[in-house]
Amino acid sequence: MKEAWGRWGDADERGALNHINGPAVRDAAALVRYGKTISLAQRISPTMAVPKSRPGIMHFMSRDGGDYAAGRRRPGGFQVADDTVVMPLHSGTHLDGLCHCWYDDTLYNGFSATEVKSNGAAKLGVDKFGPIATRGVLLDFVALNGAPLADGVSIGAGMTRAAIKRAGVALKQGDAILLRTGWQERSDTGGAVDFDTEPGIDAEAGLLLAEAGVSLVGADNFAVEVLPFREGTVFPVHQRLIRDYGIPLLEGLVLAPLADEGVSEFLFVAAPLPIRGATGSPVNPVAIL
Amino acid sequence: MKEAWGRWGDADERGALNHINGPAVRDAAALVRYGKTISLAQRISPTMAVPKSRPGIMHFMSRDGGDYAAGRRRPGGFQVADDTVVMPLHSGTHLDGLCHCWYDDTLYNGFSATEVKSNGAAKLGVDKFGPIATRGVLLDFVALNGAPLADGVSIGAGMTRAAIKRAGVALKQGDAILLRTGWQERSDTGGAVDFDTEPGIDAEAGLLLAEAGVSLVGADNFAVEVLPFREGTVFPVHQRLIRDYGIPLLEGLVLAPLADEGVSEFLFVAAPLPIRGATGSPVNPVAIL
Amino acid sequence: MKEAWGRWGDADERGALNHINGPAVRDAAALVRYGKTISLAQRISPTMAVPKSRPGIMHFMSRDGGDYAAGRRRPGGFQVADDTVVMPLHSGTHLDGLCHCWYDDTLYNGFSATEVKSNGAAKLGVDKFGPIATRGVLLDFVALNGAPLADGVSIGAGMTRAAIKRAGVALKQGDAILLRTGWQERSDTGGAVDFDTEPGIDAEAGLLLAEAGVSLVGADNFAVEVLPFREGTVFPVHQRLIRDYGIPLLEGLVLAPLADEGVSEFLFVAAPLPIRGATGSPVNPVAIL
Amino acid sequence: MKEAWGRWGDADERGALNHINGPAVRDAAALVRYGKTISLAQRISPTMAVPKSRPGIMHFMSRDGGDYAAGRRRPGGFQVADDTVVMPLHSGTHLDGLCHCWYDDTLYNGFSATEVKSNGAAKLGVDKFGPIATRGVLLDFVALNGAPLADGVSIGAGMTRAAIKRAGVALKQGDAILLRTGWQERSDTGGAVDFDTEPGIDAEAGLLLAEAGVSLVGADNFAVEVLPFREGTVFPVHQRLIRDYGIPLLEGLVLAPLADEGVSEFLFVAAPLPIRGATGSPVNPVAIL
Repeated sequence: MKEAWGRWGDADERGALNHINGPAVRDAAALVRYGKTISLAQRISPTMAVPKSRPGIMHFMSRDGGDYAAGRRRPGGFQVADDTVVMPLHSGTHLDGLCHCWYDDTLYNGFSATEVKSNGAAKLGVDKFGPIATRGVLLDFVALNGAPLADGVSIGAGMTRAAIKRAGVALKQGDAILLRTGWQERSDTGGAVDFDTEPGIDAEAGLLLAEAGVSLVGADNFAVEVLPFREGTVFPVHQRLIRDYGIPLLEGLVLAPLADEGVSEFLFVAAPLPIRGATGSPVNPVAIL
Repeated sequence: MKEAWGRWGDADERGALNHINGPAVRDAAALVRYGKTISLAQRISPTMAVPKSRPGIMHFMSRDGGDYAAGRRRPGGFQVADDTVVMPLHSGTHLDGLCHCWYDDTLYNGFSATEVKSNGAAKLGVDKFGPIATRGVLLDFVALNGAPLADGVSIGAGMTRAAIKRAGVALKQGDAILLRTGWQERSDTGGAVDFDTEPGIDAEAGLLLAEAGVSLVGADNFAVEVLPFREGTVFPVHQRLIRDYGIPLLEGLVLAPLADEGVSEFLFVAAPLPIRGATGSPVNPVAIL
Repeated sequence: MKEAWGRWGDADERGALNHINGPAVRDAAALVRYGKTISLAQRISPTMAVPKSRPGIMHFMSRDGGDYAAGRRRPGGFQVADDTVVMPLHSGTHLDGLCHCWYDDTLYNGFSATEVKSNGAAKLGVDKFGPIATRGVLLDFVALNGAPLADGVSIGAGMTRAAIKRAGVALKQGDAILLRTGWQERSDTGGAVDFDTEPGIDAEAGLLLAEAGVSLVGADNFAVEVLPFREGTVFPVHQRLIRDYGIPLLEGLVLAPLADEGVSEFLFVAAPLPIRGATGSPVNPVAIL
Repeated sequence: MKEAWGRWGDADERGALNHINGPAVRDAAALVRYGKTISLAQRISPTMAVPKSRPGIMHFMSRDGGDYAAGRRRPGGFQVADDTVVMPLHSGTHLDGLCHCWYDDTLYNGFSATEVKSNGAAKLGVDKFGPIATRGVLLDFVALNGAPLADGVSIGAGMTRAAIKRAGVALKQGDAILLRTGWQERSDTGGAVDFDTEPGIDAEAGLLLAEAGVSLVGADNFAVEVLPFREGTVFPVHQRLIRDYGIPLLEGLVLAPLADEGVSEFLFVAAPLPIRGATGSPVNPVAIL
């Protein structure tokens, strides 16, 4: 029996997103002052960086302008272009569903891992989330550190508290926490990112956020948590937050443009594609200031 | 030279979304009263209805709970499921990019159709939009009609004005207009939808909306516009709105749950996946009340 | 312990293909008289008929002549077209691997079904077969019947013996048996095929062939065996031939052009793509006369 | 007007494969002595080496043994595994179709490049070839050289003549020529292959083979021809052989096992998948000794 299991009923498949209630959404909307909309997503393309364990994206045009240049007919004058993607769902900026990882053969809320078969997850699919709108809080470790964190830097509870203090906000139930480590930004300005090592939070920092009742934890790196893992552990933050607390992780965020606004809290909206039984979804999360 | 070309500069690739300015977003956010979040998207699955001209979705698990049941090792106790989709981008609830259709070999804002080649659209890709947040206005033709509209019913300018009047709001620049025809709802309650015939707007109704300065036109049908087309025309609303006015169309919406709320205006957020050079994107649009 | 298990060693993954030895290949090659090469495969395309339980093929051009018509550069004068398929492996004319089906959680030769996980079959993948060259024998039930067999016609042992007699050959070890029912041919000349009903062999006929030591059983229908199944059974020929005898099935053949040659025996070559751990492979089998 | 254009009629789409006539096939079949069948193909998998310009293969199980281990029902006792590939057609061991490359906007036999659009090649698709059976001749440059050729080594006409002499056969019309450079073999025994540099033939050697009336030229490297190209040229052998002579190229062969047999001529069979309008096809070519 784990921390958040049963908290929202035995049938619950939305986990910590249940922390977001009407007042939380309303208060988040009230944070909008300028009406400025900022995308927090990477651009998706066949040339984007992906970890070795996953295939890249493919994008195919099934009809395009070249076809008409080559003489394709245009009934009624109408010309059209159309396309298809082949896309691993944990590509680029994406949300992890609660069926994405677990341990002891049991998923969040006690569901059996046997619910997750080749035709998708009968329980805890990312389609069970629905759109997410709540207060977003930016914890800016780049600003705190004066520079992007180096690969392998472990963000602990103390450093997390310092970032919260710097943000000037008190965490509250339902918050979506966005962690800026600078990992993606370094790749923008030079060498390729290395998916085997990155700055990120440790399990203690994850638990601090989980116990504060956050609805979601996002970061501008590959896995939210620090890589490589502490010896003897494998994705410990994933194990604890997703499986024990029902907290979705949001990975691969682009946070520098948001940080440049100098604002720590904002209306945050992220709406995963409701793919039946999927373990995750690419998203284009939005901060509205 | 068409209606909206050049209005936002010769290099513009966002079209009518430029109608949305800071005050429009701020005013839309101020509409949030209860903090209720409503998804306007269909669930995506391999069994969802698709038109004959497009392939269906495929969803593959590259690892799942069955693998562990069959003895897969779990280093550090960690267990994970992962998946990939093959997805035509105009599947389910999706946004049409401005490179999706055109005539006379020229796209919105005068870009040449030769910009759209097999490696994607160099201009007007859906990745140029960014997230959309603005006031949404529901025009409920099902309520107006007392029942879902029948296949082939053409919604003209008069009927559109009646629906606006019924909604009790004055259209303003930047509004996202959502048209409820009842087409998808009928399929929920019985037979399969027929992608060759549906109720939808005609060109005159489309121009009425375009001239009002709306940022986007969405509908709960396959193509926003009425099918079959008036004789001698092929997708006339697509041609005029997308290519001449730069207005993105949002197709395949689920609007009954929103209509049930009895509210005509709300904060509307839709954030297409920023797929480089894509002609469209599946989206999970949100109404926040 | 089933019929052919252990016959070629406990580690064997090629099953009845082991019946083909050097003399069998050499004798088959000696059947070549005119040097005529006949394809036994359906053309593959996105519009080909597929059963409801499987997705169709997708074929995408990642570069094509239209791109150059639209102005793509041509370094060194070189112009190129390139493409990708998304293809269920049991599409069109294809060979079933020995990991394709089983019962009692045990595959051919006693391998556990847990060898077949999301990353492919660790045992009995279609890549273990290698190319097949042997004598092909055509059993022409269309000629025997004077017309294509009707849907649901069950070919029993007696009818099979009559077809062998008509062919004028004695079956021998290693033969590839090709059954012409006329199912596909009927679809050529009119209505669509129905994957829920077809003429095909029953279990008794299958066992007759298996006990004769054939290396492979092919047919011009969807599943080799008669559909619908005898009550209470599901794919009984698949269960017995693939799992108990290690006999690959070859489905969706095009046999009318071969039958038109009036020859019952010939050099038969079929070379599955060696896709690691795959359950089947599309093939273009050849009869050389 | 180029060398082979019009030789087999203005409508011809099979090019040099027309050099293979009945006697050529029959004579090739007569070469079979031991009845030994040797695959000349690489194993296909998601981890195989691919050039940077092409995506890798994906292989997905849509049902597998793990599903049953996790409790999937088995009606009638029947258990089944099924899978799908996403496969660039020029992957691994594959045949280039005559629509694969060209120059001056004109393909083999004078067809316009505008025949090759997003829905495939209306002319010269790989489905027009049919299965290939003919005499194969191995030109073993590894044996000639005493070791695999180094990257960038250009095989000219003189070296080609030496290899023919060493093979002890006179080339004749319709032969399939297989060139062993050792490129793939080196990757087997150590480092990864580099797709930017390899030993291969130059244009002069290609023309020597073309003028001898060969039906096909294959090699155990990525592109048949030497890389990098001679300055100022891009894929010159492709341009000349495919477009001017209508000779299919067969790339990525595995030739060491065949070379180990010490035989220079043999029955060669390669049957591309008849994918409508495709620019190439993966194949599993066979040498039968």
